[in-house]
Amino acid sequence: MNKATNLVWHNYEVNKQKRAAAKKQKPMIIWFTGLSGSGKSTIADALEKKLYADGYHTYLLDGDNIRLGINKNLGFSDADRTENIRRIGEISKLFVDAGIIVITAFISPFQADRDTVRELVGDGEFLEVFVDTPLDVCEERDPKGMYKKARAGIIKQFTGIDSPYEAPKSPELVCKTDQDIVETVQTLVSELSAKGYLD
Amino acid sequence: MNKATNLVWHNYEVNKQKRAAAKKQKPMIIWFTGLSGSGKSTIADALEKKLYADGYHTYLLDGDNIRLGINKNLGFSDADRTENIRRIGEISKLFVDAGIIVITAFISPFQADRDTVRELVGDGEFLEVFVDTPLDVCEERDPKGMYKKARAGIIKQFTGIDSPYEAPKSPELVCKTDQDIVETVQTLVSELSAKGYLD
Repeated sequence: MNKATNLVWHNYEVNKQKRAAAKKQKPMIIWFTGLSGSGKSTIADALEKKLYADGYHTYLLDGDNIRLGINKNLGFSDADRTENIRRIGEISKLFVDAGIIVITAFISPFQADRDTVRELVGDGEFLEVFVDTPLDVCEERDPKGMYKKARAGIIKQFTGIDSPYEAPKSPELVCKTDQDIVETVQTLVSELSAKGYLD
Repeated sequence: MNKATNLVWHNYEVNKQKRAAAKKQKPMIIWFTGLSGSGKSTIADALEKKLYADGYHTYLLDGDNIRLGINKNLGFSDADRTENIRRIGEISKLFVDAGIIVITAFISPFQADRDTVRELVGDGEFLEVFVDTPLDVCEERDPKGMYKKARAGIIKQFTGIDSPYEAPKSPELVCKTDQDIVETVQTLVSELSAKGYLD
């Protein structure tokens, strides 16, 4: 097939700008980071529901669709955690290229890994959102009984117990979890709008 | 954060059906397979442009955005080719879940790997499209000079030369490349419509 016969199609040229324009939005990664039990998934889920209701085209990446799918061949060593986040970053970049607002909810404990994802995409396309719930609060909640198992040594390399969590140095947004979920999401949406990320 | 406070959001519940409905389309994977030089990328690119022009939400996965991104740590051994296609399949599944029509253009030489991708998604969500260009035609075109290098032994494990290509056993669609690109795409779109995949 001669590529020259392809010229007639060139005026359609589909790229990130066109895909985003068709969706009437600014594509970006809203990257939640925080300890296990901090509330990342709950907030991310509620934010996606709100954005969907407002007509945005979103997609949520979390442990359910990543750890059981593309990253099922990765464990929890430091190297595997880094590869886990690298792949999530590359997938997020593809979704941004597709014009989507992608929301991610992963502990993502290392600043260097989060910075790697930031560098994958353009300026203003990576928003680091720190879900700033203290360890003692997360451990008291312990929704899946993971902290108990980690303290007992049954689970190894658990973030906050025997594996480090590096809090974001300069996140775009911070969620305090002393609000209820509706207020938290309203605050996030207001801040995203004020900063020009949403209409 | 108590999940019970999240109830107020549940009526939005965002899932594949809602995301697809918002985009007014049936999400699916249009999976082009064929030899190097068969015309996969050219046809995939032209098909995406046509679908975009018709208002569909599409995304194209190809060597440019996969091999240089998420799969840059994979080579061309049989095991790496299998992992390459597995990851592309998992990413395609995420895009289908996001309500997108995803178009892929990879040699994907092994039937078992393509079947693995088919099994990842639901019935009717995987369309195998065989770009049925004979080896001698591909080798004569040799757009990147790869066949010449493979014949000279400079490139090893090149599909069709010293690595097998397994033609699809029962592809949903077949492209013969004796048409020009505009006709090829029109034929594809007509067949997709006739089979109920497009409106």
